[in-house]
Amino acid sequence: MSESRPFVSLATDFGAAYTGTCAGVVHAIAPTAAVLVLSDEITPYRVREGAMLLRQALPYLPVGVHIGIVDPGVGTPRRPVAVVTGRGDVLIGPDNGLLPPAAEKLGGAVRAHVLENPAYRQESVSTTFHGRDVFAPAGAHVARGVEVADLGPAVDPDALVPLDVRAPSVREGELTAGVLYTDRYGSLVLHAGRDDLAAALGGVAYGDPLDLSLTGADGTPRRVRAPFAETFGSVARGEPLVWVDSSGWLGLAVNQGSAAERFALDDDGTLTIRRAPTVPAPTEPAPAPR
Amino acid sequence: MSESRPFVSLATDFGAAYTGTCAGVVHAIAPTAAVLVLSDEITPYRVREGAMLLRQALPYLPVGVHIGIVDPGVGTPRRPVAVVTGRGDVLIGPDNGLLPPAAEKLGGAVRAHVLENPAYRQESVSTTFHGRDVFAPAGAHVARGVEVADLGPAVDPDALVPLDVRAPSVREGELTAGVLYTDRYGSLVLHAGRDDLAAALGGVAYGDPLDLSLTGADGTPRRVRAPFAETFGSVARGEPLVWVDSSGWLGLAVNQGSAAERFALDDDGTLTIRRAPTVPAPTEPAPAPR
Amino acid sequence: MSESRPFVSLATDFGAAYTGTCAGVVHAIAPTAAVLVLSDEITPYRVREGAMLLRQALPYLPVGVHIGIVDPGVGTPRRPVAVVTGRGDVLIGPDNGLLPPAAEKLGGAVRAHVLENPAYRQESVSTTFHGRDVFAPAGAHVARGVEVADLGPAVDPDALVPLDVRAPSVREGELTAGVLYTDRYGSLVLHAGRDDLAAALGGVAYGDPLDLSLTGADGTPRRVRAPFAETFGSVARGEPLVWVDSSGWLGLAVNQGSAAERFALDDDGTLTIRRAPTVPAPTEPAPAPR
Repeated sequence: MSESRPFVSLATDFGAAYTGTCAGVVHAIAPTAAVLVLSDEITPYRVREGAMLLRQALPYLPVGVHIGIVDPGVGTPRRPVAVVTGRGDVLIGPDNGLLPPAAEKLGGAVRAHVLENPAYRQESVSTTFHGRDVFAPAGAHVARGVEVADLGPAVDPDALVPLDVRAPSVREGELTAGVLYTDRYGSLVLHAGRDDLAAALGGVAYGDPLDLSLTGADGTPRRVRAPFAETFGSVARGEPLVWVDSSGWLGLAVNQGSAAERFALDDDGTLTIRRAPTVPAPTEPAPAPR
Repeated sequence: MSESRPFVSLATDFGAAYTGTCAGVVHAIAPTAAVLVLSDEITPYRVREGAMLLRQALPYLPVGVHIGIVDPGVGTPRRPVAVVTGRGDVLIGPDNGLLPPAAEKLGGAVRAHVLENPAYRQESVSTTFHGRDVFAPAGAHVARGVEVADLGPAVDPDALVPLDVRAPSVREGELTAGVLYTDRYGSLVLHAGRDDLAAALGGVAYGDPLDLSLTGADGTPRRVRAPFAETFGSVARGEPLVWVDSSGWLGLAVNQGSAAERFALDDDGTLTIRRAPTVPAPTEPAPAPR
Repeated sequence: MSESRPFVSLATDFGAAYTGTCAGVVHAIAPTAAVLVLSDEITPYRVREGAMLLRQALPYLPVGVHIGIVDPGVGTPRRPVAVVTGRGDVLIGPDNGLLPPAAEKLGGAVRAHVLENPAYRQESVSTTFHGRDVFAPAGAHVARGVEVADLGPAVDPDALVPLDVRAPSVREGELTAGVLYTDRYGSLVLHAGRDDLAAALGGVAYGDPLDLSLTGADGTPRRVRAPFAETFGSVARGEPLVWVDSSGWLGLAVNQGSAAERFALDDDGTLTIRRAPTVPAPTEPAPAPR
């Protein structure tokens, strides 16, 4: 953290006011820092969504201190940690799987420390708002020059809690993948990349028709015909598509609509993707509830 | 952009996380810039709403780089552009009507360039996230001193795609205007100003009763009696009013309520405004659904 | 305001775009200031929620200018004011109860002035957007060095409009408290502290079962059994708890759920808390709608 103007980002599921309070703590402790609220609207308690946001966004941000907080276990014995990355960032947050995917993208987790030093916490630590009382102060102190090692005892960076996420299943002619998260537009981002699709189906070109099998949160099995498309505008408004998102994940979207609503899928859903037959397509279910 | 601390604003329909990512890109490329998220919650795909936000807000912001992104056509051949204004701002965004109304307010569009120079884009450009890969880098490079002309080939600023918006219709005794957008409170902002009202109805004073005819999105024609009022507090809580908004547009609101919900009007709606007769008023429809 | 880099925060019920506009006004007038949007999502018109946010957040923020705007009376004769606190902050906002609780936390209101000086307003003041035209300019001018006394005539700080909020009722064996506000997670924050609970019930330890009587917004009386808990994670997912929030208020929450939805309580609700009998508990209502 040798820059003249240190950089601190915050990403939370707190909403504006509590995130703003954490940002204010950073300003109070590290008044010269540039402070960015990367997000204050991660879906509450969705560690996976938060982990994916950090993983895809942080490589584009300045090297700095990045505070990530999605913390269903606040107040329980889960550890608050600081993770130093190969790129030189310091990631601050709960040890619940939120930070490792981002650390991996930033050159790996090279060191980690537990945030125990009371000198770098608020004088009084609440049981429910560690963002304000533990995470933001730790990040701000690092931004103003405190050594990460001074925050608390070292822990093995390989022993951090990994993100809980299912691996894609690649078989001859079919790819099965879980939903990673649902974005703001209702697009479903899958835990599988273009390579996985190619491994299962062979080379797939833009425009190739795909056949998706999924079971909605309402328990209804659905089959969806959607092309593999380069971009949303490649299909008509209201039509579904499978695309590769800006961080390399496959996704199921509806152009200018919500795939999550249309197919009643949520973050616990799973999809199986096959090539659509070139013979007449199976009758597709009507797009919207009748 | 000769200030000691360049200023960059962003206004998008991306929500917090993707907008925060774009802001992070600006911080990474132009670390001394002051970066303001003007809005991350423009209604998705509503170019008109975004254009009106830029038009009304930018005159109050510092001269600087203003990145505006509402881009239903991302990934299609619509052009990404930078527009230099008479005031000295550089507006960055898609060439889809979003920027011209603001440029006009800022002294006019004096030059425009297409964002084609790969030196001022991310190394790898995704098909779906041009905010991060094209617009934010271009804006940040301009903020740190790159000449707008270096971003790409010049285009005629008069040939930029204009905003798609219907003109108000002024007739003797009646003014017909389309809804420009619905604000956060459910107030309907109309594409007509106080001058248009005066041209149609003669001088209109605060307190004058008006008669509005409209057809809701539910297909139901409605007549609404509402006074021309100076401010929301001029009418009782829950009562409708016609007012002049803070950028000079006429609007239909409900004091501490939502006009959009109450009258089932959306952004595609149209209103006709007449003077209310001074004889007993027509029976007004009940305010809320029965 | 002698710091090298003045600090300005904004908290409003405006949403992103109008709040961003106000922040832009601050940047334009006070270009060296650090500007923090503390919140742009206070529930519209909820003065009490805004007052509590300022009261709990500002002590953690740098000494500076803090602009708070929840202003149902914009355009009516309520006064716009600046309040100097004992800590040295300048609070800017409408004189409607929003500022006094925060001022009290910051060393008390030592001076107050009405924002009347046209030199520190926008040249043209709209009737509906005093955030942009009155409050943000006043705050920004103070941040760049204008004396608070120059903003307008002094008023007695003890004569500011107090916040409208009911006092807790402490009786032998029972505490009755009103809901202060509902937070983003649907947790109900009560206008009573741990001291009030102790005064009513004697010492209360974590784990002690409590018996809550309340009447939902749907008119249904409910009894809820919930433990006094140190933290959300002390009870199973979906279970209710009574806890002390990070600013010292009692609250009723549901771990990873919404107490407001579950018990149909809103900001006008009232709860009575007693010790639960140690004999078999009364039959509790089922947690979710059947």
